[in-house]
Amino acid sequence: MSDTPDSAVHAYTERHRAAFLDDLAEWLRIPSVSAQPEHEGDVRRSAEWLSAKLKETGFPVAEVWETDGAPAVFAEWPSDDPAAPTVLVYGHHDVQPAAREDGWSTEPFEPVIRDGRMYGRGAADDKGQVFFHTLGVRAHLAATGRTTPAVHLKLVVEGEEESGSPHFRALVEQHADRLAADAVIVSDTGMWNETTPTVCTGMRGLAECEIELHGPEQDIHSGSFGGAVPNPATEVARLVAALHDTDGRVAVPGFYDGVAELTATERALFAELPFDEDTWLRTARSGAASGEAGYSTLERIWARPTAEVNGIGGGYQGAGSKTIIPSSARVKISFRLVAGQDPDHVQQAVQAWAEARVPAGIGHRITFLPATRPCLTPLDHPALRAVARAMGRAFGQKILFTREGGSGPAADLQDVLGAPVLFLGISVPSDGWHAPDEKVELGLLFKGVETAAHLWSEMAAALR
Amino acid sequence: MSDTPDSAVHAYTERHRAAFLDDLAEWLRIPSVSAQPEHEGDVRRSAEWLSAKLKETGFPVAEVWETDGAPAVFAEWPSDDPAAPTVLVYGHHDVQPAAREDGWSTEPFEPVIRDGRMYGRGAADDKGQVFFHTLGVRAHLAATGRTTPAVHLKLVVEGEEESGSPHFRALVEQHADRLAADAVIVSDTGMWNETTPTVCTGMRGLAECEIELHGPEQDIHSGSFGGAVPNPATEVARLVAALHDTDGRVAVPGFYDGVAELTATERALFAELPFDEDTWLRTARSGAASGEAGYSTLERIWARPTAEVNGIGGGYQGAGSKTIIPSSARVKISFRLVAGQDPDHVQQAVQAWAEARVPAGIGHRITFLPATRPCLTPLDHPALRAVARAMGRAFGQKILFTREGGSGPAADLQDVLGAPVLFLGISVPSDGWHAPDEKVELGLLFKGVETAAHLWSEMAAALR
Repeated sequence: MSDTPDSAVHAYTERHRAAFLDDLAEWLRIPSVSAQPEHEGDVRRSAEWLSAKLKETGFPVAEVWETDGAPAVFAEWPSDDPAAPTVLVYGHHDVQPAAREDGWSTEPFEPVIRDGRMYGRGAADDKGQVFFHTLGVRAHLAATGRTTPAVHLKLVVEGEEESGSPHFRALVEQHADRLAADAVIVSDTGMWNETTPTVCTGMRGLAECEIELHGPEQDIHSGSFGGAVPNPATEVARLVAALHDTDGRVAVPGFYDGVAELTATERALFAELPFDEDTWLRTARSGAASGEAGYSTLERIWARPTAEVNGIGGGYQGAGSKTIIPSSARVKISFRLVAGQDPDHVQQAVQAWAEARVPAGIGHRITFLPATRPCLTPLDHPALRAVARAMGRAFGQKILFTREGGSGPAADLQDVLGAPVLFLGISVPSDGWHAPDEKVELGLLFKGVETAAHLWSEMAAALR
Repeated sequence: MSDTPDSAVHAYTERHRAAFLDDLAEWLRIPSVSAQPEHEGDVRRSAEWLSAKLKETGFPVAEVWETDGAPAVFAEWPSDDPAAPTVLVYGHHDVQPAAREDGWSTEPFEPVIRDGRMYGRGAADDKGQVFFHTLGVRAHLAATGRTTPAVHLKLVVEGEEESGSPHFRALVEQHADRLAADAVIVSDTGMWNETTPTVCTGMRGLAECEIELHGPEQDIHSGSFGGAVPNPATEVARLVAALHDTDGRVAVPGFYDGVAELTATERALFAELPFDEDTWLRTARSGAASGEAGYSTLERIWARPTAEVNGIGGGYQGAGSKTIIPSSARVKISFRLVAGQDPDHVQQAVQAWAEARVPAGIGHRITFLPATRPCLTPLDHPALRAVARAMGRAFGQKILFTREGGSGPAADLQDVLGAPVLFLGISVPSDGWHAPDEKVELGLLFKGVETAAHLWSEMAAALR
């Protein structure tokens, strides 16, 4: 199948290890915190740094793309094989805020190598994972003797992922022609753990709403009026209580329309993972697992749609008491969606469900935020098999399959470009995304390089 | 029955009208706002002013009583008839905050008379209503030719009612011997409206709790964990939704234990009042009436116990969204209680009900505030008939009966002193309690004086 001897890739990677780490450290020193206005210039500097580095790597095209927010980076390296498929890699160059006093052992923007790990903000999320593609493509060329990649290779690296990617979809729509691809590789996720390499096959979608209920025109006295007019705080609670049935299923009529049910194969694959519920509960900082009847915890968070209250509020919330019937109350609910669900349909279903439950004397306002579609790659998709084979060659291990419970801009790429989204992530849960002492395991980082090096030949073969 | 010709009372009252209004205005000029620390000295000045005025009125005993907060005033005028019953009048000398810029037409602490009304903070709540007792007792003496009242007359006028009477119960307990009475007259309520004189026969009690539920040790990501661990915001909403059954009855087992059901006579008396639901809804600033099935609006707010959510909160309540499962959520619930209900029993019932509903993985903390007992005077109680007769003589009209939906320190007097509580209030809903342009109708104020003048003979006859 492959024309790249695995040992050649490994040798090339080892040879360039020190320079690669020096470069990554240089990038990590740029505090490209998209959420903090004082770092606006750093985010731009990070984009310019990456663009220059990609040119140095050999990408004939490397550009900084402006958005209405922070800039993104686009790069392209066409294959000399005109029949080669096109693959687009996605990542982001902005990072979460970080300060020494948050609990970091060393300065977050002064990366250090300690015990086989590189510590620094962005080491895993996501600069390290973007960066393994630079050495990866060079190892691919060196080991295959090619002068151009086996696929038409494109990269898009956005600068606002940590701020919710507010301009990413518009960017993708604006540049849809140049971003067009047969497959998208997202390198912004992780694997099961240090010893269990896995490929993520999908993420859940997201529909978010706020429901505000209005009762009396102002707070009124609960002694004078209590018991005789509807209370919007009570009504908002009744809505929330009606969200689920006693089996933990979402009780909004039509919510499950189109849901892709788990196949026996998928359930078997989930069950292969070394999952320990007690460990998971400690990660969830929760005292008990609960949810939709008939599903395991992994199935619940990866493959089932959910409704969660993110916030609820109304009336007096200070110390002591205030005997009022509040004028209004509101709840923020987010729905995680799985393959087969249409966010528009879910929004309509939620709106109809809520409106039908609001009693006389209570006004309502229901607002939806922009939704994110779910994405799921079928287990037998050739591109997914290619990712798993590339990873298997790098790790020398059987590759298992996971999903992500969260939602991300990957869905915008799938949506706008109409291409399947694959995930190649080598981060592990202990890497401390968004936390102090974020790090990347150097062993895994170079497995990422090697996976990326094998990937383009595998993809070319799979998608030809 | 009466030894006081009504015309003599009326003539005496008219003769002292101007001086009475001058005195009241002088008192209203003292901004005795108990909630504002900068007025601490004014509250004390108000107590001293009243104490001096009561001595001037003829009370042999008039004292300023210290509390751990603002001072109260106590006065006593024994009857020369050793067999006379003892009656204690309750009121308060502190007032709500007020400032011209809140929407007052004139300075709130510069009382003015306009169109037969005296405008000023405290004119109705409660200085005006306390003060009519001073001229009232003198008219009683003048018209009956007595040198001492027909009852052993006591007054207690607290200085923290507008701040929730935090030290009143302790004060009553401390001075229970000196406050001992056969009946208590509370002059801090109102009547139906300008043309419908009424006597209030009871107030609801109050039990208040806060229920806090704890889920994950910190907010966790609703994508990574949503659907697989219990959500405290959802659980708090489920508790609230379970508070009432579909008939609008409180669904806490044992809540209705001991409730004094409305008699046919009481329902008939309520129905005699010129109640208009549309007008009432405008006062309630609400769009619909709703509540316990089988009861009218007046029955619901006056004679039925209720559970109202005063505040609910948990998770993210800011703009936009935050995809979390919140770590905790809480709700403040107040229960209005009616005669026959025991606050301790209600609290135990609520605690047991809530604890039984908290699922695995959710922690809870339930806190109760000090409760207030309900008070209700039976319609055939001689003291109540005496109040109604005194009022009827002053107004020359049939007196109807109401209740109050709210709760007040009157219950502490009933509780500690073991005496029935009667209500003599001449304020009307348009008087603007706690609002700008608070006023008292002078016509009603002097009906209050005359009622107070008739009251002591009526009470002496009724309680002998």
